Amino acid sequence: MSLKFEKKPYFMPVFFSGEDDHGINDTSFHEPADINVISLTYETDREALESIIPDCYELLEPYVNIKFCEFFGCSWMAGKGYTLINVNCPVRFKGERDEMEGDLILVMFENHADPIIGGRDSMGYAKYFAEIPLIEKLNGKFSCKASAWGKPFLEMTVDTNVKASEEDIEEIKKVEGRAKGKFQYKYMPKVREKDEPYEANYTTPDCAYPVVLPAFEKPVDYPYELGASESEWGMGSIKLTPTAWEDWPHGWRIGAGLAKLQPKRIIAARHFTYKDPGVYYTCYILR
Amino acid sequence: MSLKFEKKPYFMPVFFSGEDDHGINDTSFHEPADINVISLTYETDREALESIIPDCYELLEPYVNIKFCEFFGCSWMAGKGYTLINVNCPVRFKGERDEMEGDLILVMFENHADPIIGGRDSMGYAKYFAEIPLIEKLNGKFSCKASAWGKPFLEMTVDTNVKASEEDIEEIKKVEGRAKGKFQYKYMPKVREKDEPYEANYTTPDCAYPVVLPAFEKPVDYPYELGASESEWGMGSIKLTPTAWEDWPHGWRIGAGLAKLQPKRIIAARHFTYKDPGVYYTCYILR
Amino acid sequence: MSLKFEKKPYFMPVFFSGEDDHGINDTSFHEPADINVISLTYETDREALESIIPDCYELLEPYVNIKFCEFFGCSWMAGKGYTLINVNCPVRFKGERDEMEGDLILVMFENHADPIIGGRDSMGYAKYFAEIPLIEKLNGKFSCKASAWGKPFLEMTVDTNVKASEEDIEEIKKVEGRAKGKFQYKYMPKVREKDEPYEANYTTPDCAYPVVLPAFEKPVDYPYELGASESEWGMGSIKLTPTAWEDWPHGWRIGAGLAKLQPKRIIAARHFTYKDPGVYYTCYILR
Amino acid sequence: MSLKFEKKPYFMPVFFSGEDDHGINDTSFHEPADINVISLTYETDREALESIIPDCYELLEPYVNIKFCEFFGCSWMAGKGYTLINVNCPVRFKGERDEMEGDLILVMFENHADPIIGGRDSMGYAKYFAEIPLIEKLNGKFSCKASAWGKPFLEMTVDTNVKASEEDIEEIKKVEGRAKGKFQYKYMPKVREKDEPYEANYTTPDCAYPVVLPAFEKPVDYPYELGASESEWGMGSIKLTPTAWEDWPHGWRIGAGLAKLQPKRIIAARHFTYKDPGVYYTCYILR
Repeated sequence: MSLKFEKKPYFMPVFFSGEDDHGINDTSFHEPADINVISLTYETDREALESIIPDCYELLEPYVNIKFCEFFGCSWMAGKGYTLINVNCPVRFKGERDEMEGDLILVMFENHADPIIGGRDSMGYAKYFAEIPLIEKLNGKFSCKASAWGKPFLEMTVDTNVKASEEDIEEIKKVEGRAKGKFQYKYMPKVREKDEPYEANYTTPDCAYPVVLPAFEKPVDYPYELGASESEWGMGSIKLTPTAWEDWPHGWRIGAGLAKLQPKRIIAARHFTYKDPGVYYTCYILR
Repeated sequence: MSLKFEKKPYFMPVFFSGEDDHGINDTSFHEPADINVISLTYETDREALESIIPDCYELLEPYVNIKFCEFFGCSWMAGKGYTLINVNCPVRFKGERDEMEGDLILVMFENHADPIIGGRDSMGYAKYFAEIPLIEKLNGKFSCKASAWGKPFLEMTVDTNVKASEEDIEEIKKVEGRAKGKFQYKYMPKVREKDEPYEANYTTPDCAYPVVLPAFEKPVDYPYELGASESEWGMGSIKLTPTAWEDWPHGWRIGAGLAKLQPKRIIAARHFTYKDPGVYYTCYILR
Repeated sequence: MSLKFEKKPYFMPVFFSGEDDHGINDTSFHEPADINVISLTYETDREALESIIPDCYELLEPYVNIKFCEFFGCSWMAGKGYTLINVNCPVRFKGERDEMEGDLILVMFENHADPIIGGRDSMGYAKYFAEIPLIEKLNGKFSCKASAWGKPFLEMTVDTNVKASEEDIEEIKKVEGRAKGKFQYKYMPKVREKDEPYEANYTTPDCAYPVVLPAFEKPVDYPYELGASESEWGMGSIKLTPTAWEDWPHGWRIGAGLAKLQPKRIIAARHFTYKDPGVYYTCYILR
Repeated sequence: MSLKFEKKPYFMPVFFSGEDDHGINDTSFHEPADINVISLTYETDREALESIIPDCYELLEPYVNIKFCEFFGCSWMAGKGYTLINVNCPVRFKGERDEMEGDLILVMFENHADPIIGGRDSMGYAKYFAEIPLIEKLNGKFSCKASAWGKPFLEMTVDTNVKASEEDIEEIKKVEGRAKGKFQYKYMPKVREKDEPYEANYTTPDCAYPVVLPAFEKPVDYPYELGASESEWGMGSIKLTPTAWEDWPHGWRIGAGLAKLQPKRIIAARHFTYKDPGVYYTCYILR
């Protein structure tokens, strides 16, 4: 008897895979996690940002939003916690069928390999590992950073003692309120055929398509309370240090690329907490 | 201007990708790493092992080989090091075109996310993260372990004070000498279409094909010395502890599956060191 | 010019030391941290517990209390966070001058070396390093563990779905309400004289005395809010796994010793949060 | 029955202590570890260096030597490994009884808390925790760094492609060959008396004395081979980044102090390996 691929989810290593369910019917996955967030939005160079976005997405405002999120008690991770950084920009998808506004996730750093592997292989989330410590908090000022192989490449502060303008706060609320989902671009390079030269390896895709994870809608019978805290608005700073191959051989292009998206102006920043059940099975291919 | 996918390697996040080369022409990738290995081969239940292997591969001896490998000075990682565990069994691939014997990698644990992501997305290596400390050595006895979220699931010792039989050592040499490459099964689940039910998500593949990384052949003009140390043969022990969803929500099936491959007999074990340049661009799809 | 020891705090390496202040006058040290706690109290064998307590302390109830505490935003650590485990029992100090009831800290595990070194060298806190992940939370059940070199030796759950008896809850409140401070025993072994045999090394003390850190009293002009959340009471479990020299060469006696304090009865457990400013300069020698 | 302090080694927590032996008679402690080293010596400002050295030590050459050492298979740590950085300068101790030349260890960074706590409390080694990755090696160039809370403060390279002058190599050999031991200054601050003001806490010592660990002399009946590899001499670089309280609340004075010892001239650097049994019971108080 050998492994037969049935019509159910498989992930590498396939030899130990064949999931019966990925949380749809498992109520132990549904309790929301507690999430502590510092978020900052800045304006960057429109051309620099547009140059890295595939055609199917249209950049709206030339804004980059960065959220450091501490997750505690994730039911979909059996109650464990971890930290992620979501780097995104506001875009509109316009396809033959779908038209939708949302956040294009340029990269999502996480400090544990398990959610990275899971999110990449399923939804095509642009996840990557980074060392991310706990968010620091001192007298109303929050700070955090991301490092690769011990070298910080992304440092952020949110200072709630410094006030953002009401106008800028409204601008952020408008942009965030408009988003109907999280956009990705799932891509996997193909292994060469035996008779192709080495140079051909990985130069065409196994798959390449846009994906959306729609914003979570609380089911009528959802038994848990959700909701977010009031935002503590403030201003902040962002430091993007370019990385070279020697620093980070597998991921240096990410650090180098982020460093090309330098801030022209910090718009506003904030600290808040919220609850989220982590529902990931609703994503679909955009057409 | 937007991101156009040219004919070159892309990896997620594609927004910061588009590699010019993946080591073929970059001589700084060619210096060999120093590798310290403890290796153990055991016999397991043939049916248990066959049941997890896809049809395209035929199990030869019902052996499981486990290697803990410390890598130091990997040029393909800019001189950095890390640790991996290679769990494999001897198989024959028999397709319409190719017929070949080699090691099917059931799972490869690594203690850093970067080589995991790189190896999964390119060659379809069945890589997964585990916490792997340095190999311990005390009075001729080596030991090491792999843990997930702080819980050990794979513990191995190699004791060079206890002798393996000459016959068993010859058996290992025969099996290892026969292998012409490392076999994988590249698999990526597909995101559902918008009008499919949630349950359909990830139940069909984006790609699903067997792959081989042929054994490295030293080029005529290769400037570095390679070679392996003498093996210090011995015996050893292996402890496979089943894991549950609560222990390891994303990877528990791997720990649970390995625990079904319990040893019936330890054949032999050894410690050795070798040098390897880490050439990964030669892999191809088996047909 | 050379290093002169003035009348101020020095810690090793003394070459880079000579603190001007340790937080007494530095208001940036005074903001409270947010602390997330799971706590469990159990009854153990009275003789086993008494046998490890120095004469100057008298054991009251034969109870062991274990608290896992996640600290976020510690101002005395410049806003950083970490995790500790406080293992303590209720005792009375009775000296020539002082008489006082409080918690004798048998061992305090922390997951970062800096507070360990600081607390040991100043107050003689019985601190030791352990790997301590974030507290897990799933459907009202909390769990956490401590490991040394990758091997768990202390695992604890607190299940708020299971109710403790009112009587037992009152017992815990009585014991905890009575404590007037945290007791320690500061001890440092002395280096031998040149003409003493090697065996004499470290067999007499540089210092050996009981210490108390009095419970924090909020100053009249303290500008921050303190206070604790309501306790979510429940029951729980504790798993103490003995450790051997091979597992944990420097600390194995701690794991082995804790395992001799096995629970005879779980009294009650709870989850709560509180705020604490981390004032450590008030401790003094008990006489 | 209560804890009685007998004439044997105790370490905090004393409740779980009372060692029978610390390796003198335990032959499993005597197998040498394999150590991989990169070492660099530079000249610094004499006055800056003298200003941090206590009177009992006289600075010889104004040199700072920094060694990054990877330890593998330490028998005194049950076969485990770890990494340390030894920052030292050549001094002469001149007391009433003893006169001796050796290396004054200004600070020793280690990447695990257990040897730190052990070495501080016994010999008064100026040990401190730092994050230290594996030594990188790429085309004859070695590099490594030390970080605190994710921020690098000490970065070093040793490039064996660049040659040191014969004269400078001889100078290093002379200085290193002269050393008869490793010098420390054991210091522990005292807890205040109850009636002393808070400001008095820790401002006088529990102990304060110079210590030496004599160079290891191989016993006549020592059964293991020792010895060092040939040195691969080269040149290198050192980067000392000052640290502030916000970066590293407990240890920032160390990073800030090291940054005052900037190199005026790199003398020479090298890579080598050696074997060492880790004998620490021979240290004594200098008089």
